[in-house]
Amino acid sequence: MSPPDLALAETRSGPGARFLAEIKEQPQALLDLLQHRNDFERVAATMRDRSASLVRLVGHGSSDNAASYAVYAFGLEPRWTALRDSITLTVYYGTKLDMRGSTVLGLSQSGRTPDVIDYVERARKAGAFTVGLTNELDSPLADVAEAVLPLTAGAERAVAATKTYLNTLAALGLLAAAVAGHGARFEESLRGVADQLDTFIPTLEQTIGTVAMPFTYTGRMFVVGRGAEFSTAREISLKLLETCRIAAEPITATDLAHGPVAALDPLFPVWLIASADKTLRAVVEAAARARGAGATLIASGSRATAIKGAEYVLPTPEPASPLLAPLLSIVPGQLFAWAVARAKGLDPDAPRGLTKVTLAK
Amino acid sequence: MSPPDLALAETRSGPGARFLAEIKEQPQALLDLLQHRNDFERVAATMRDRSASLVRLVGHGSSDNAASYAVYAFGLEPRWTALRDSITLTVYYGTKLDMRGSTVLGLSQSGRTPDVIDYVERARKAGAFTVGLTNELDSPLADVAEAVLPLTAGAERAVAATKTYLNTLAALGLLAAAVAGHGARFEESLRGVADQLDTFIPTLEQTIGTVAMPFTYTGRMFVVGRGAEFSTAREISLKLLETCRIAAEPITATDLAHGPVAALDPLFPVWLIASADKTLRAVVEAAARARGAGATLIASGSRATAIKGAEYVLPTPEPASPLLAPLLSIVPGQLFAWAVARAKGLDPDAPRGLTKVTLAK
Repeated sequence: MSPPDLALAETRSGPGARFLAEIKEQPQALLDLLQHRNDFERVAATMRDRSASLVRLVGHGSSDNAASYAVYAFGLEPRWTALRDSITLTVYYGTKLDMRGSTVLGLSQSGRTPDVIDYVERARKAGAFTVGLTNELDSPLADVAEAVLPLTAGAERAVAATKTYLNTLAALGLLAAAVAGHGARFEESLRGVADQLDTFIPTLEQTIGTVAMPFTYTGRMFVVGRGAEFSTAREISLKLLETCRIAAEPITATDLAHGPVAALDPLFPVWLIASADKTLRAVVEAAARARGAGATLIASGSRATAIKGAEYVLPTPEPASPLLAPLLSIVPGQLFAWAVARAKGLDPDAPRGLTKVTLAK
Repeated sequence: MSPPDLALAETRSGPGARFLAEIKEQPQALLDLLQHRNDFERVAATMRDRSASLVRLVGHGSSDNAASYAVYAFGLEPRWTALRDSITLTVYYGTKLDMRGSTVLGLSQSGRTPDVIDYVERARKAGAFTVGLTNELDSPLADVAEAVLPLTAGAERAVAATKTYLNTLAALGLLAAAVAGHGARFEESLRGVADQLDTFIPTLEQTIGTVAMPFTYTGRMFVVGRGAEFSTAREISLKLLETCRIAAEPITATDLAHGPVAALDPLFPVWLIASADKTLRAVVEAAARARGAGATLIASGSRATAIKGAEYVLPTPEPASPLLAPLLSIVPGQLFAWAVARAKGLDPDAPRGLTKVTLAK
């Protein structure tokens, strides 16, 4: 079968062209970030000097998904605790927490997300070391934070984020590694990931259509990941929601058994991210449980072939360390979302009801 | 219209009888918990004495949903930071975090959730003050934790949790209030909630059928809450998934605008929890956005009537303080799930593929 939409991949305009182009720009965006390693080393040094070792992250959408990754990056590298903090508690309820000993990382591509800016301002007054991570160095977020780290993803025009998500992961990993004194090694590993992406993206682009096509009219899906890959499960779900209008829900391998598995049937497919780390067995067990409930399985990740009975397998290259895997395993989700959206006649560059900069409070 | 299934409400056996009975037992279970206030005061005193003011919560399913509530209970009462900690980081990746200055709350109805027990053991070695909150005082969780707090929900036989969820909320609130020196006042407020539930549950039981019936074949839904009510959004979603096989996803009011709103249409209803607190405006705005996308709206909470254009309105009583609202606003979700499950011919006492005690890792 020759998927009807693949010809569109070659077009430079039309629906989805920006989204696809930005997926392909990711290796270069990643390399651009590495030009700024000194900035990350400087911020890391301040975090250490101020013993600001409780890392509070705030953001919405893809930024919040990337924050899930930071829990593992800071946990595995300097062995610090990182958390996705409640914006509501500080901004809406006006609760004054003691934030001395905390680093706050405000994540916003545009630097204009209102409640992230508000949170960062209040956190600074509460004693936190505040850092803005943004693609726009001339933005309100950059103004209110004590330090700014650049995302350097270049202009992102498709509404659905791709390269800014990937660069947020890389930036959070680089910062965590710098705190642990491993910045140089992590930079080197990120170069390796950029190389792998450079080959992997165009290869997968050629074949994703045949995998995506059967899911054109899928209404709902679970995306399963655990540990560092939970961020990937969240981000793939968001891409499917916003570009394909699929009710996709991220779920950890273990939580599937705590209720949601009861909802599965052959019209409720499950995507599993199987990477080469210590959570693999839990993901394999979740797959068997989903398969037992009759669900069609899609497997991705560097250990995709470990998922028995998966109808669709999208293996990703294996990086130098498990912590880097999410930078590769997001790509099948991005390309799958692009292909399904195109098959449905939707425009992933401009999903209905969304704007690039979200000013919702 | 007379809903065909309401007659079943009166039966003492048959599908869903246990689930319904346990929903009705909640006011008494709440009062039983208050018999143990001294236990909560003792644990609170130890938390203060040991300056164990970073509160790490672990649990799965309904326990994890209740943990979302603790973020607000500890934030608003003693102004401490609480977080749903990563089990994976400690148990699967074997990362040794420094947990001195932390209280760990392990949440498990059965006291037998394997990775919660494993996490608590490791956290204790890492210097945390470890507390098990469980319905089973003779359980592995009670054995490994330094202190145990009883859930006192009585035997829960329906697979889908109801009274253990409500008592977990109450227990977490009571502990947070005790840390802040407000234990007596909070106990008094909880008595008020038990009174309100005692009247509210049987009243709503009589009318829920007419609201639930149109959703019998709904495939997907968003449940929107923000702040303290995000736990409610998560728990209603889980009830709908496990008892009604609806792909229900919890989402905060603000995150709806960051992508997911693009997926909405008239076959994708949105449930909004509108309570009398400072997040109300954000929930009202999210409702307008969902309505604009063509979604049917269900509004619950003490300010349900503030949601313009909601087709279905399920107002809940207003408690003495906003922090108590989630103990009341979960009830419409429980009864709605019961009624939809019965209309579909499903048994909410024993959803397919689930067991009461989940030993999945």
